[in-house]
Amino acid sequence: MDGKGIPRAVIERLPRYFRYLGDLRDNHVERISSQDLSVLMQVTASQIRQDLNHFGGFGQQGYGYNVNFLYTEISKILGLDKKHRLILIGAGNLGQALVNYVTFETRGFNIRGIFDIDPKKQGLLIRNIPVLPMEELQSFIRDNDIDIAVLTVPKSEAVGIAELLVKYGIRGIWNFAHTDLNVPKDVVTVNVHLYDSLLNLSYQINEREE
Amino acid sequence: MDGKGIPRAVIERLPRYFRYLGDLRDNHVERISSQDLSVLMQVTASQIRQDLNHFGGFGQQGYGYNVNFLYTEISKILGLDKKHRLILIGAGNLGQALVNYVTFETRGFNIRGIFDIDPKKQGLLIRNIPVLPMEELQSFIRDNDIDIAVLTVPKSEAVGIAELLVKYGIRGIWNFAHTDLNVPKDVVTVNVHLYDSLLNLSYQINEREE
Repeated sequence: MDGKGIPRAVIERLPRYFRYLGDLRDNHVERISSQDLSVLMQVTASQIRQDLNHFGGFGQQGYGYNVNFLYTEISKILGLDKKHRLILIGAGNLGQALVNYVTFETRGFNIRGIFDIDPKKQGLLIRNIPVLPMEELQSFIRDNDIDIAVLTVPKSEAVGIAELLVKYGIRGIWNFAHTDLNVPKDVVTVNVHLYDSLLNLSYQINEREE
Repeated sequence: MDGKGIPRAVIERLPRYFRYLGDLRDNHVERISSQDLSVLMQVTASQIRQDLNHFGGFGQQGYGYNVNFLYTEISKILGLDKKHRLILIGAGNLGQALVNYVTFETRGFNIRGIFDIDPKKQGLLIRNIPVLPMEELQSFIRDNDIDIAVLTVPKSEAVGIAELLVKYGIRGIWNFAHTDLNVPKDVVTVNVHLYDSLLNLSYQINEREE
């Protein structure tokens, strides 16, 4: 549950609704029934109704959902009406790939700075953003009103850097390091554990072989 | 539920157990009680016991879990006693980062080939693996006994390529494209939707501000 009593599972499904509604909008679909949306998304219509009811419903009996309206409302719920200012820490291959993932940029997630502990990487330009030394982290976060840090550092460094980020007032950490971070409750962390995800795939393949 | 009646949520938690047990093993811890593991992993001891009971238990009353034994057993359950042969399709920034993520390689996930539809990328070497044209996909999968495809192509191409992969006999797709794939039930897909994950972070930050 989050602070509003919305189950975590519902929150985790919201971006998927947002993605499907965005596709429908791009295809100029004006309205859709929960039944049709259910076929498209391969979840039950009743789950869709229940999920969206947590946010006030939006559907009208006999009409269905207004695609553009629902898309806009979910975008506000997801905080996309506000701009986010990001830094990335760890300018390795994965970090560089994320900086170059400009899709985030066009949707209100602006990468303002890149940091790396390796002096050899400092001064390097990635998509014209310079890699800065860790000594400048605190002042950079403060001066640029950074709210999100993307963490693409090795596991061994992640916990220590996360402690610094919390101390320097970061609000959210998008963590790609292969470890869980222990941060205070007012700091949000979302993990992308790529190896865990690959193991999930491996498990399912193995299980179907038997 | 999977084919053995194990709930999906349990399966999704297995890689995390595996990660913590690997860390304990690396730190030469020989055994651990479900209570201590529960403090470490910040889940209840009863959930740990219930989860591991799906696979036969492994714990002994008054002794706890033998770390190395449990690690080895979970590694087998996850299919890590078998080697996987992978191809990657889409040699963009993210694809290149994943090919360079050698940690997978050392753990039995060998990237054998890289494909891209862009003729300009063909012939390029990424970690000494050449980028091949899509025309060679079918024969390459067959000749190299490829079981997993990593899909790092744009959304617009992903569905079409997934259909080819299924036709050519791939067993699992690790999908980074920002769309869901509709594949037959005997083909496994695991999605890494990075933007969905970033939206989850944005939602939680937004929700705490209000």
